[in-house]
Amino acid sequence: MAIAKRDTGAPIKDGWRIDALQYGRWSEKIFLQMREARLDAVHVTLAYHETFREAVREVEAWNRRFLRHADLLRHARNGADIREARRQGMTAVLFGFQTPSPIEDDPGLVEVWHALGLRFMQLTYNRQSLLAAGWQEEVDGGVTVMGREVIAEMNRLGVIVDLSHTAERSCLDAIEASSMPVAATHANPRSWRDTGRNKSEAVIAALAETGGMLGLSLYPHHLRGGSACALEDFCAMAAGIADRHGINVLGIGSDLCQDQPDEVVAWMRQGRWPAPPGAEPARFPDPLPWFEDSRGFASLHRGLRAAGFDERETAAVLGGNWLRFLDRGCSLP
Amino acid sequence: MAIAKRDTGAPIKDGWRIDALQYGRWSEKIFLQMREARLDAVHVTLAYHETFREAVREVEAWNRRFLRHADLLRHARNGADIREARRQGMTAVLFGFQTPSPIEDDPGLVEVWHALGLRFMQLTYNRQSLLAAGWQEEVDGGVTVMGREVIAEMNRLGVIVDLSHTAERSCLDAIEASSMPVAATHANPRSWRDTGRNKSEAVIAALAETGGMLGLSLYPHHLRGGSACALEDFCAMAAGIADRHGINVLGIGSDLCQDQPDEVVAWMRQGRWPAPPGAEPARFPDPLPWFEDSRGFASLHRGLRAAGFDERETAAVLGGNWLRFLDRGCSLP
Repeated sequence: MAIAKRDTGAPIKDGWRIDALQYGRWSEKIFLQMREARLDAVHVTLAYHETFREAVREVEAWNRRFLRHADLLRHARNGADIREARRQGMTAVLFGFQTPSPIEDDPGLVEVWHALGLRFMQLTYNRQSLLAAGWQEEVDGGVTVMGREVIAEMNRLGVIVDLSHTAERSCLDAIEASSMPVAATHANPRSWRDTGRNKSEAVIAALAETGGMLGLSLYPHHLRGGSACALEDFCAMAAGIADRHGINVLGIGSDLCQDQPDEVVAWMRQGRWPAPPGAEPARFPDPLPWFEDSRGFASLHRGLRAAGFDERETAAVLGGNWLRFLDRGCSLP
Repeated sequence: MAIAKRDTGAPIKDGWRIDALQYGRWSEKIFLQMREARLDAVHVTLAYHETFREAVREVEAWNRRFLRHADLLRHARNGADIREARRQGMTAVLFGFQTPSPIEDDPGLVEVWHALGLRFMQLTYNRQSLLAAGWQEEVDGGVTVMGREVIAEMNRLGVIVDLSHTAERSCLDAIEASSMPVAATHANPRSWRDTGRNKSEAVIAALAETGGMLGLSLYPHHLRGGSACALEDFCAMAAGIADRHGINVLGIGSDLCQDQPDEVVAWMRQGRWPAPPGAEPARFPDPLPWFEDSRGFASLHRGLRAAGFDERETAAVLGGNWLRFLDRGCSLP
């Protein structure tokens, strides 16, 4: 990509729009906003710390939504389902976990979950899991023995390895261990906003070199300036990645947690563990004014164009790259 | 069917062979016998009294078998999968429950199970379930409110209602409530062997009139004479049903429990309930000498021909009728 270049072509009206991470308090309002945003597909989170049975309840809740909002939503298992959703004017919903807790200590559950539609699974949330270390761990021992076995099983079935919350060495181990390209569905470069939750240049480079993906996050804690981050700054950050690592690695994973009460962020952070004594109650940050909901994709389109991405490149970042990646990674039925 | 008729046509070498109930102690030996028997498909039991999570373990066990015996077995979700299995010289395996216990008290689990491949579910095993009464209950109150809701959900998704162990009124209620044809996958006429486990002429007539199926059982307790039942007597019984109710209702559901230890029949009968004081330890009956394993389909072929079924009719009873039924009942993906 040549940042200096400005094309004058008409906007690509039918560019793909895919959001690789949302966890809203789901409602018709949100689903209508997705349609207004022309969102073709969204990866939704089923679990943060849930057990197998608790996560099955989330599948049931989605099954009810698919029935109730059959004009807006469609469950997607692969790229073909996303294309079919677009043909029908709907948003395709892909299932994922931000944790491996729903497979408990049973690798056989990966195939069970694949049959239930699981297409993304994080190896860790913030802490140590049975598979790898999360970014808040003091010691990052990398991918465990079980982790390698589960990655192989995910590769066999077509469940994408998601490294968004995974610690540095564990990320690099996983990229090396996986026979399929992997993703950090929602994270930004640590060089732009320095938090362990964001990704090092080494990890971004390894993703780019292996056909993987980095879904840029719009969650204020991952942004320079937090909730005050300017669209221009965000899109300049994206342009920097494109310059350093190429454009194919780039997608969006907004991490939108629309309309969720603060109990939900407490569950994300603490799970079943006690809060540290004297800790401030967990609360969600204020949303970005230019990305309050899925309709913020229009802001991103405008911002990326202004930052030097041409129409074709902008369409790739907003969804085309994810679709190509999903076609390869979720190729099984 | 005209019983007196004898056709002289060559055997239909490629007639379908489908067994609508087996619960063996699964092994390569059994799977090779299925191939030797040219068994195109088998409905296998995943649960008698198991909870949701316990039955998921059975899915996992089958997933391992599908990997290990990929040259012999294929998981089937519909008639098309059975045809594909035959093309590849394999036996198609369809999942079923002999109890609704794996849906616990949660109708949303029907769709979860459908996604995991469930294609048959009994409304009851021997006792009262949340859905209906089993044949050993003292009072048969028919299909419950939840039973009607679950039947509607099974109809919507394409999970076949199985009435094999269900009590009389509950059977008739279910046939009436279901918008799709239903089956007793493994049972015989009570008029031939008088046990509450076998089906009345009223139930068989209702199955036949609604496009349903009766899978004839080879389990000795369901047979006149038990383990000493002659092939000729069994096939004459089949001919009698064909005369009274037509041939389309007839299939085979052998109820083979090959190589199972007696603890398994104790689990089937008692589940988690205590055995009655002084009860004899449960044991499996001796198998029929002419139906010790799937290769007994050759005995059935010979016996049905001798009982007056022509080649086309014999092929229908041994599998063709089940395939037609499954094409209609398991039409969803």
